[in-house]
Amino acid sequence: MVFGFELLQEDPHSRARAGVIHTPHGPIPTPVFAPVGTQATVKAVSPRELRELGASLILANTYHLYLRPGPDIVADLGGLHGFMGWDEPIMTDSGGFQVFSLAHLRAVDTTGVTFRSHLDGSEHLFTPEKVIEIQEKLEADIILCLDECPEPLDYDYNVQALARTHHWAERCRAAHTHRDQALFGIVQGGVFADLRRQSAEFITDLDFPGYSIGGLSVGEPKELMHEMLEVTVPLLPADKPRHLLGIGSPEDFFEGVARGIDIFDCVLPTRIARNGALFVRTGRLNIRNARYADDPAPIEEGCDCYTCRHFSRAYLRHLIMAKEILGLRLATLHNLHFMLNLMREIREAILAGTFAALKKDFLANYEIVPHEVRQRSREARSMR
Amino acid sequence: MVFGFELLQEDPHSRARAGVIHTPHGPIPTPVFAPVGTQATVKAVSPRELRELGASLILANTYHLYLRPGPDIVADLGGLHGFMGWDEPIMTDSGGFQVFSLAHLRAVDTTGVTFRSHLDGSEHLFTPEKVIEIQEKLEADIILCLDECPEPLDYDYNVQALARTHHWAERCRAAHTHRDQALFGIVQGGVFADLRRQSAEFITDLDFPGYSIGGLSVGEPKELMHEMLEVTVPLLPADKPRHLLGIGSPEDFFEGVARGIDIFDCVLPTRIARNGALFVRTGRLNIRNARYADDPAPIEEGCDCYTCRHFSRAYLRHLIMAKEILGLRLATLHNLHFMLNLMREIREAILAGTFAALKKDFLANYEIVPHEVRQRSREARSMR
Repeated sequence: MVFGFELLQEDPHSRARAGVIHTPHGPIPTPVFAPVGTQATVKAVSPRELRELGASLILANTYHLYLRPGPDIVADLGGLHGFMGWDEPIMTDSGGFQVFSLAHLRAVDTTGVTFRSHLDGSEHLFTPEKVIEIQEKLEADIILCLDECPEPLDYDYNVQALARTHHWAERCRAAHTHRDQALFGIVQGGVFADLRRQSAEFITDLDFPGYSIGGLSVGEPKELMHEMLEVTVPLLPADKPRHLLGIGSPEDFFEGVARGIDIFDCVLPTRIARNGALFVRTGRLNIRNARYADDPAPIEEGCDCYTCRHFSRAYLRHLIMAKEILGLRLATLHNLHFMLNLMREIREAILAGTFAALKKDFLANYEIVPHEVRQRSREARSMR
Repeated sequence: MVFGFELLQEDPHSRARAGVIHTPHGPIPTPVFAPVGTQATVKAVSPRELRELGASLILANTYHLYLRPGPDIVADLGGLHGFMGWDEPIMTDSGGFQVFSLAHLRAVDTTGVTFRSHLDGSEHLFTPEKVIEIQEKLEADIILCLDECPEPLDYDYNVQALARTHHWAERCRAAHTHRDQALFGIVQGGVFADLRRQSAEFITDLDFPGYSIGGLSVGEPKELMHEMLEVTVPLLPADKPRHLLGIGSPEDFFEGVARGIDIFDCVLPTRIARNGALFVRTGRLNIRNARYADDPAPIEEGCDCYTCRHFSRAYLRHLIMAKEILGLRLATLHNLHFMLNLMREIREAILAGTFAALKKDFLANYEIVPHEVRQRSREARSMR
């Protein structure tokens, strides 16, 4: 079995479940959080540190790597695993979300999507076949179909976009030949239950080895995201892993897992770390605050990350205020540890039958920060 | 013995010598290269990595730490060792060079030097007593006297500056009370043999436990630097360590060691690394060059640094071009390894009696890059 999903335990009170995804680069215990390594590096940390943090899956961005250094260079250097020195599982996205958020959109039709690079303005065309070819060169273990990421609240736009996404999924499936990679289908449909149902049925009919749910957490209220998961997940096969694209926060982990999600990926912990925002069990702490200037305590008592074992809040604040690279590193290590560790706790609780209690306890103490909306370009927002 | 210098071996063909400096935080094998941790962090690397690189001494900048986070905060957090999580030897400079290069100078007289912070324009006065007080709070193992760093080619200015430097040295010595810190005297005198001799005699008469040679490599030709070392070093006591301030490059290590220097500190390897300039045995390689875009080789074959053991030139180039933090880290690790390793080779060669051969072999293969001049502000250059 090159690729497979083993379901170990289902929670009796929710759709939460624990399992293992088997890949050519080893097992991924689920539920799992995948740190994002956009440009073939999880920002500020080394592969050795990622291993020490217990990361079992990372996600890299096809759009960025296609533009720089280019898929042929990555392929020549041994694929992403060889290129970046990470021999554990990797997934790549299809570039769809980035084209609709970072690039300058030129045109979208059934053929594909034409865009200008955010780096040098050069024009490019992503077709379903093209993004499969790129991802085959990048050689991640899990790859994704090209999808369109529309404004989630616009029904008519979502109807049109969904037709393209479904057509592209069929073409991606047909174009994909590497049997040591698992191609996941993506369910879209904005915040509309009928479109989500239609999409789940269409995409699962194509029989992918796993499914991603896209187009959420891009501006809609969190309640709508939860509702869409409740509509979508029951229509996905129980014996395949389910991935919630680009999400999330600690509270998203609990709410997503409870609704049957197995894989999460998000830049949140690494991005906010570089601004000095650090996860603790009671919420977030901003280390830039002057109250920490002479604070000898670690970020969080009892945390066993490298940062908390060796350095004070005062030192970390100094590094962040002085714009020192080590500050970005230490903050990132702490936040990644927090999120990876939280997901391990969640998994153990599911296996022990105590997920509901952990969720209740954690959320009772954790002050939720209004969630960051993933950025979309003006073009993408206005595109019809 | 809280602090002491043990001379192990003298080279028969030059003034090169190998020894050990004993400090309250452990031994420093000499000759030694001290990576610079300006703001209480060697840029981009962690204390764990510094230990793995075999660094036995680092230098931190009093001027920067005085301005941010301030010496009282560092003192409250356990001094620099506790603050930055580095329990091996540390030295601090007096802030003199930075005041004359980074800050906006206001006035210099026998009292001290008045300057405006480069961070917020606030006005400050460094007197000899003040910089000793600051350095006592920072708690480094080796600390330095306040000195004036004049334009090296201007004789009249050097005469005036030297009088102040000597007066300040006397006051620093009188003000210093912490017996677990070694206060080094600084010899100045520009590029003038008579002034260097006069300074060496005056400063050694004050009987410090070690001596720094300042005011070199700030614009004068390298031959003049060598000449000044040849004039100065023989006047320094053989049983005390000798430090060449703010220098150097690989060739400076050989030329300095051959002229009797025991301690070097320099930002060169870390600073140029962040621009993609990497040391190899044949000179410097600029990883930004397009020829490395698909190069699967490590920076240098046979190098056993973390970077060369795990990553290709192609990957490192990608990271540097994409402005990724990991690129700055990996480049810095390689350059520090190169310099620390080179100094270890030099030390072993002195102990084995093969220093002259190593120097000849290394310099025959190494293409010297015209040396970077340490930056001085316009005010400092025009100051009289």
